[in-house]
Amino acid sequence: MQESPILFGCMGPCLGAGWGLGWPLQVGEEGTAWARLEHPGRSFIPAWLPRSAPFPVPAPRGCHPNLVPTGPPLSWRAMEGDSTLQLHVFDLNCWAIRYLSKRRQERVRLIGDVLRQERFDLVLLQEVWSEQDYSELKAKLGGCYPFSHYFRSGVIGSGLCVFSRFTILDTLLYQYSLNGYPYMLQHGDWFCGKSVGLVIIKISGIIFNVYVTHLHAEYCREKDAYLPHRLVQAWELAQFIRHTSKAADVVLLGGDLNMHPEDVGIRLLRGWTGLQDAFAEAKHFEGCKDGCTLIPNNCFTIKTELLPFPLGIRIDYILYKAISSFMVKCEELKTTTGSAPGRDIPFSDHEAVMATLHIRRHRGAASATLSTAVPALVDVVTEARTEVGVGLRAAQRQRYSTGRLAVLALLLLLLQAAAVLGTLAGLGGQPFPKLSFSLLAFLAVGILLLATGLHLFHTIEVKMLQGTEEQMRMALRVLQERASDG
Amino acid sequence: MQESPILFGCMGPCLGAGWGLGWPLQVGEEGTAWARLEHPGRSFIPAWLPRSAPFPVPAPRGCHPNLVPTGPPLSWRAMEGDSTLQLHVFDLNCWAIRYLSKRRQERVRLIGDVLRQERFDLVLLQEVWSEQDYSELKAKLGGCYPFSHYFRSGVIGSGLCVFSRFTILDTLLYQYSLNGYPYMLQHGDWFCGKSVGLVIIKISGIIFNVYVTHLHAEYCREKDAYLPHRLVQAWELAQFIRHTSKAADVVLLGGDLNMHPEDVGIRLLRGWTGLQDAFAEAKHFEGCKDGCTLIPNNCFTIKTELLPFPLGIRIDYILYKAISSFMVKCEELKTTTGSAPGRDIPFSDHEAVMATLHIRRHRGAASATLSTAVPALVDVVTEARTEVGVGLRAAQRQRYSTGRLAVLALLLLLLQAAAVLGTLAGLGGQPFPKLSFSLLAFLAVGILLLATGLHLFHTIEVKMLQGTEEQMRMALRVLQERASDG
Repeated sequence: MQESPILFGCMGPCLGAGWGLGWPLQVGEEGTAWARLEHPGRSFIPAWLPRSAPFPVPAPRGCHPNLVPTGPPLSWRAMEGDSTLQLHVFDLNCWAIRYLSKRRQERVRLIGDVLRQERFDLVLLQEVWSEQDYSELKAKLGGCYPFSHYFRSGVIGSGLCVFSRFTILDTLLYQYSLNGYPYMLQHGDWFCGKSVGLVIIKISGIIFNVYVTHLHAEYCREKDAYLPHRLVQAWELAQFIRHTSKAADVVLLGGDLNMHPEDVGIRLLRGWTGLQDAFAEAKHFEGCKDGCTLIPNNCFTIKTELLPFPLGIRIDYILYKAISSFMVKCEELKTTTGSAPGRDIPFSDHEAVMATLHIRRHRGAASATLSTAVPALVDVVTEARTEVGVGLRAAQRQRYSTGRLAVLALLLLLLQAAAVLGTLAGLGGQPFPKLSFSLLAFLAVGILLLATGLHLFHTIEVKMLQGTEEQMRMALRVLQERASDG
Repeated sequence: MQESPILFGCMGPCLGAGWGLGWPLQVGEEGTAWARLEHPGRSFIPAWLPRSAPFPVPAPRGCHPNLVPTGPPLSWRAMEGDSTLQLHVFDLNCWAIRYLSKRRQERVRLIGDVLRQERFDLVLLQEVWSEQDYSELKAKLGGCYPFSHYFRSGVIGSGLCVFSRFTILDTLLYQYSLNGYPYMLQHGDWFCGKSVGLVIIKISGIIFNVYVTHLHAEYCREKDAYLPHRLVQAWELAQFIRHTSKAADVVLLGGDLNMHPEDVGIRLLRGWTGLQDAFAEAKHFEGCKDGCTLIPNNCFTIKTELLPFPLGIRIDYILYKAISSFMVKCEELKTTTGSAPGRDIPFSDHEAVMATLHIRRHRGAASATLSTAVPALVDVVTEARTEVGVGLRAAQRQRYSTGRLAVLALLLLLLQAAAVLGTLAGLGGQPFPKLSFSLLAFLAVGILLLATGLHLFHTIEVKMLQGTEEQMRMALRVLQERASDG
């Protein structure tokens, strides 16, 4: 990939007139640029914003680098059709689990090298579990990506981080309320504090809400015990995006969603937020067939898991939408194809997704928030709600059985205590053998603690599933009202 | 308190012309009303919105009930100064802990009776821990408050709920990342899943983001071990409000913040969000001196805890701000004074806070987001960050000591295992007494499990405190840049 400067104006043949009608730029002696922008009715975008990135912006290809537009400041309306912002986004699940992931350090070094060389505008990474790996990347990438953020959460962390060429104005983390089971140690998702991270970035006066996330893994597609949890996460992700992005101009989401494109969770997320899939929308695509990001060709993937999918599966996404009067198009989408560009080792067990997005002022009214038609959305929310209901009933059963086990263990302990008291008072007959007795007590205490802990856990699970189901019911009511209104 | 209808227009002398220039209303045969509203630049408020509340709106006092405005639709600009929305808000920490709170059921019934009688527009309740209490309130209040939401979270719940006369369009829950310690059973905050709940309500086309919350209690003011956690909560609350309220017209926050008005957490919350304190801003105040909400006169408060504060303390708040081109004023603030109105028993151990807010279109530009001057805000964030840093170092010490304890317990277990193996292999001398040996093993396993659990807990605590400290550092950088920009 070539070095990819942000281009202002001049997406077509570059003419002086094009500049005059495009983003009015003042290119200084050293090539630094300021973009003037008038944005009616929005208080947070002042006129004459200095570009935040501290490095000079190269002049557009084919344009004279000292070209300075003149004339009075132009409003956005006059610029329509002539100004396009080009943004290169990189997304990767890095699979950097300390002591477990193969050739981790070598791969993290490789990721850093390639990112430094290719110069994307935004880099969204998942599964950077070790803060040391993040620090190494940060030290290496400081020159090209002066802004970065690592999202801390849970015991191990969220694994999420963002590197940016543009000032990060603010961040927020939302931890999903459900994320698997603490006793499923072999899967370990519960310990990771799976979350969605939001960073707010302003590029030439356009507010970007950039979300990075990683949802619960799918370990068995046929009998997916984690589906309700992943659906709760997809719902919370959608709700978080909807509620936090209302003042944004452009929304970007990158991450490992652990869902196939046609899964109910993806349909729910896309339908409820109006996000578009960069793969489906891309004008040009280059990479693995069907945009797959977990492929048998990658030497780190577990081949047996991909047997039902000879081409692989697509679970890593770049999604986007414009909220206010902007338009986003995916000009190009690429994936790696089993190895890092020009190397014989992959970045990770996942393929990287790289999108080139074009952002421009929209001529008509603001784009609609929901892309999916209301009846279709009602169907998707209903389907998701049914699955959450299935999970709820399973959680209620588990809460009941762990509660019953805790009560039984407590009864056993009380019986033992009564026997001890009886023996001490000289009421009983022959005392129990001490070792067996204390081992039994040990076992009863262990079961009591474990069952109580699990009971509390499943109580929380029930509450969160109920809460999500209720939110979905409210959403259905609002959608149905909207449908009946016309 | 009198029945409090929402008034449209006519806050001053009511004239026909006033209506023409006020909110253009169509009052139907049965008194139902539609408010026409044009709101430039906002896509989510359509013209000719039907009022969402399913009950008829009484005509303004002194106006003829069948007055129908005529003429062409008027823009907001023409209406300035003539239209005021009056909103009655009720906030109470209900202290409804099952099996623990005194006369709980009687008080919950009383709260329901008074709320039904007084007819507020919005009711924000905390510490409704039992879902059954919520259901009873919901059944009783369904007639006057047709919309309500109970926020589920944590083992016990969040205790938060909202009753509203107006349609609740959407909800979102944000659970605080830190909330005390699981081993502080006598305090129990950890089990409560303390959160902030958001409900979105539209009244006559004005979008209200209503937040209800309850922060960690303060058990010892002199040596407040929970201060860093409460500050993290105050910060997360402020961030959540800032990020989710950008499309709102009016923001309301009600809740038990467990902080005195001059505490750093309150200053941080108010400074960082721009929220105003209804007590400080109220034109008329009636209630406990200094607006106290935990007073010695209340028969349920623990008198010894209030000894240093003979008047009581103020920890329950109604805060507000207008975001877009609206203005909010607190016309009147009231608190109960140790007993429910006209009864000899208080609602709770807290006093209720009741505010009458006036919302009107603002003449000038949109109100500023931050009310506090930047240098003062820098000081507050720095002060809060220092306190979070103190908490961070304490958490790091606890993480280290619990980790060391876990390692020691593991070593003891390994030694015991070696001794057993040695005895079995016939290498050892005299075997240990079986009972002491198994009790020691029991103890070691117990300590290992407990210390490991605590170590994991303090690891999470460290991560969240670090994350908050870093967010605050980023906020300081942005503020300092803003200050240097002038």
